[in-house]
Amino acid sequence: MVRLNKGERLDYLFDKELQVIQSHDVFSFSIDAVLLAKFTYVPIQKGKIVDLCTGNGVIPLVLSRRSRAAITGVEIQERLYDMAVRSVAINNLEDQLSIIHGDLKDMPAQLGHGQYDLLTCNPPYFETSEVEELNVNRHYAIARHEIMCSLDDVIRVSSQLVKQKGKVALVHRPERLADLITTMRSYRIEPKRVQMIYPKRGKEANIVLIEGIKDGQAGMKVLPSLIVYGEDNQYTETFKEIYYGK
Amino acid sequence: MVRLNKGERLDYLFDKELQVIQSHDVFSFSIDAVLLAKFTYVPIQKGKIVDLCTGNGVIPLVLSRRSRAAITGVEIQERLYDMAVRSVAINNLEDQLSIIHGDLKDMPAQLGHGQYDLLTCNPPYFETSEVEELNVNRHYAIARHEIMCSLDDVIRVSSQLVKQKGKVALVHRPERLADLITTMRSYRIEPKRVQMIYPKRGKEANIVLIEGIKDGQAGMKVLPSLIVYGEDNQYTETFKEIYYGK
Repeated sequence: MVRLNKGERLDYLFDKELQVIQSHDVFSFSIDAVLLAKFTYVPIQKGKIVDLCTGNGVIPLVLSRRSRAAITGVEIQERLYDMAVRSVAINNLEDQLSIIHGDLKDMPAQLGHGQYDLLTCNPPYFETSEVEELNVNRHYAIARHEIMCSLDDVIRVSSQLVKQKGKVALVHRPERLADLITTMRSYRIEPKRVQMIYPKRGKEANIVLIEGIKDGQAGMKVLPSLIVYGEDNQYTETFKEIYYGK
Repeated sequence: MVRLNKGERLDYLFDKELQVIQSHDVFSFSIDAVLLAKFTYVPIQKGKIVDLCTGNGVIPLVLSRRSRAAITGVEIQERLYDMAVRSVAINNLEDQLSIIHGDLKDMPAQLGHGQYDLLTCNPPYFETSEVEELNVNRHYAIARHEIMCSLDDVIRVSSQLVKQKGKVALVHRPERLADLITTMRSYRIEPKRVQMIYPKRGKEANIVLIEGIKDGQAGMKVLPSLIVYGEDNQYTETFKEIYYGK
């Protein structure tokens, strides 16, 4: 039996196929992580995947429904690492998923260079942070702000971890699109696919999904637009197909 | 009376407010140019605007409905230059619009550095070109392929022509999005606003509009998605509002 700590709850993914431990005190996954796990290319039958800033492990869990590859999650915060380990156990996925407690910047030395077919990451979104905000909740602050790692760190390490022609898939805010593209190129990850997620028709995008290929050829695709909420403030059918589908 | 040459026709813009000379033999404007002219920031009351690769002058014509600034169009092909000059005359816009027959690469020397509040350009989209295609129609080939100028030329010259904090607005194919962003940044044009145009719901974007600011601060906005055709294969209401509106 997997233990739940104070403040934690079990949430379902995909109509009760998967369970994930969440905690409002520490971290809850957002739709961003699930959208990234659905957007990204995956090696289907074999290969190696690594997910940086894995949090409670939601991306490895979702990817396990799309791929038989070995998936490693990396998380620097011990409480989140511990939640991820228990979420893997609840779903009996210990054979496919492993979680590492560590700093992503140490991973090329620890895991080896050029070993992965795919790297995913839902990194902290905000560059700078107000001192007051950081003091409210350090767990959230580290997950949201570039305190322990910068976007440059994430992409530099990504480029080191993936194979030649390996893929790197990230989710971020549209505000950082130029930073994403220029930094990816500077570390030889050629941006190939991007998708804009719009909260509602007529609104600016609030999520960007981007995938690049190590030493890939230039040439991008902008995938069909995805709108999350309809005029009735309910999820759109297209969003539900992606979010709840496989 | 303005003369029309063989093969030329007069098309209306905005419910007959403006007329533009088109020629299937040489060049017809696409919706891309009109969308750019609607998307871009404009100085309303005064200032200076330059439009590179102006073709038959459609962008200056549309901009004249949004701004009282002096607008200069630059076109390297003599036949197109001549069409643009006559389109300006037909609309009695000689006081506001002037057309230059010349190479955009010569414009910083000819027009001066750092003089413009806004630069617009609908450049040739294709990097390489098949010899056969180039031979079919040289007018179209020059308008569509990077024969007389590369994307790098366009952005380098743009950066030279605009003032500090001046704006540069371009339309291109999504395939070149990474090139657009990295080249803009390399010439100190910070990408600030981007809009993806999708031909139909569920389809990949086929036009990208992007605007940057000379020495602007980092931080992008992705404007609401714009879908051109509805399920009935007619223009969507949103598209019509933008395309036919002011």
